[in-house]
Amino acid sequence: MDLYFSPLACSLATRIAFYEAGAKANFIEVDPKTKEVLRDGSDFRKVNPLGLVPTLRTDDGTVLTENAAILQYVADHFPDAGIATGPGMERSRLHQWLCFIGTELHKGLFVPLLDKKAVPDVKSWVLNKNLSRLDYLEDYLKGRDYLLDHFSVADAYLVTVISWTMATPPVELARWPVLKAYYERLRARPSIAKAIAEEFELYKAELARHKAAA
Amino acid sequence: MDLYFSPLACSLATRIAFYEAGAKANFIEVDPKTKEVLRDGSDFRKVNPLGLVPTLRTDDGTVLTENAAILQYVADHFPDAGIATGPGMERSRLHQWLCFIGTELHKGLFVPLLDKKAVPDVKSWVLNKNLSRLDYLEDYLKGRDYLLDHFSVADAYLVTVISWTMATPPVELARWPVLKAYYERLRARPSIAKAIAEEFELYKAELARHKAAA
Repeated sequence: MDLYFSPLACSLATRIAFYEAGAKANFIEVDPKTKEVLRDGSDFRKVNPLGLVPTLRTDDGTVLTENAAILQYVADHFPDAGIATGPGMERSRLHQWLCFIGTELHKGLFVPLLDKKAVPDVKSWVLNKNLSRLDYLEDYLKGRDYLLDHFSVADAYLVTVISWTMATPPVELARWPVLKAYYERLRARPSIAKAIAEEFELYKAELARHKAAA
Repeated sequence: MDLYFSPLACSLATRIAFYEAGAKANFIEVDPKTKEVLRDGSDFRKVNPLGLVPTLRTDDGTVLTENAAILQYVADHFPDAGIATGPGMERSRLHQWLCFIGTELHKGLFVPLLDKKAVPDVKSWVLNKNLSRLDYLEDYLKGRDYLLDHFSVADAYLVTVISWTMATPPVELARWPVLKAYYERLRARPSIAKAIAEEFELYKAELARHKAAA
């Protein structure tokens, strides 16, 4: 499978899923600014017109977009990894958490905070509207190791999103000690430590590239 | 099943799903401002701490939140209605569309535009960032009747979100003629026409209640 990704973007969650499965994938880097595919200079928007990562090309050439869809596809493709769920209410809970992380946290809180083009009014609006979502998580995670009863792709996604707090100073993770402990515990998980370390190097190279081009 | 809803909110999509299935549900109205359950004055946040509709209580009393999870639960619960999909790539496409609508359109475009507390800078930021998502939809819908190869809960959700353009003047639906035709065609579908007509009456009552309380 081919995974189009940008360093430390939400596509990191799918890389974690592959590492959990011990599975091989072609990781194809996309510059988030220029939408250029680094390996050949082609336009990523020809693969996904939205220009968004992750984008997955399956072994039979099908292109799949959107994080919640890709994470479940990869999780289901490698059942031995145990990062998906069974059917029924267990799967509904996975849907619930992927949707919560994608809508309330990723799009509702972090995208505006991470966007350099967003003026201060945008950031204060979004903090006022959605910062309480972290209180909800804090409360939910009390006494739990994972979002579901085992490590799943929902955790891979949540860890990815929470890792962005390094770059969003108004969100001080220390204010949510249970969430912080969850993050630090999962951050040390081999698949996650490896994925973040690798993408951090690529992220530094991306910053240097943008600086040189400026 | 109990469906907590607010008139013309995204919970409308689940009402449409119930009507498609010809299934009974208890529709329990929540005031979106006060978070009060209208029938008994109780605090909806005791059911869902996020205070968000839709929230579903299944027949065995399980509370499920988040639109993508609830829509799939209801669709799978009434297989004869044909508004879900089979497994495999078909289901992945359903995930993809539910995720796209929830993140890019609902949270990414319409929530900021509909929010009376969002200052003009927020609205222009979001239009600049995400209005192009409608171009993507316009292009995708050319020559198609539905998002998938049959009417599904993804269409119920998309119609709901597009119906909000009535209240978001910067988004002139006429600019996307294929999307507009899709919307008008689905708007005439009996389940959707009935759901919108009923909730429109409740919405007017909600506005009158808010006016009286001001």
